Amino acid sequence: MNTSTLTGLAAAFCTTVSFLPQALQTIRTRNTASISLPMYALFTLGTLLWLIYGVWTSNMPVYIANGITLVLAMIILAYKIKYK
Amino acid sequence: MNTSTLTGLAAAFCTTVSFLPQALQTIRTRNTASISLPMYALFTLGTLLWLIYGVWTSNMPVYIANGITLVLAMIILAYKIKYK
Repeated sequence: MNTSTLTGLAAAFCTTVSFLPQALQTIRTRNTASISLPMYALFTLGTLLWLIYGVWTSNMPVYIANGITLVLAMIILAYKIKYK
Repeated sequence: MNTSTLTGLAAAFCTTVSFLPQALQTIRTRNTASISLPMYALFTLGTLLWLIYGVWTSNMPVYIANGITLVLAMIILAYKIKYK
């Protein structure tokens, strides 16, 4: 595996895993005041589109990363709507 | 342009632009209590790696989308560190 592929994998790992501490903090505190509703509405839609795009183009890294991110983004969005 | 490419562009548009309302809300309110510091630290690093990967592999959609997201993520991260 070459260096650019490794950089892409490291990038995908960071941007995907980053939503885990946010989801955990949101579930634990139920405090969503400083989280933007338009951000998570648009971001969740975008991640769903990335997932569809990844499946459509048989791009496994894209659909795996976005499948995970979609679940985490949906949790944060659901808490934002419920505890606004 | 085929339908899968359009889906990818729509996905990139949504996930990139989504950070704008979050950055604007954070700048306006300076309230960052429910924003996760580990999320934005990891996400900013990931976006920087995506930018490097995009430039490295001459993938314009990747480096343009992540260049914009990096600026927005850095603003949110800076406010989180300053107003925690």
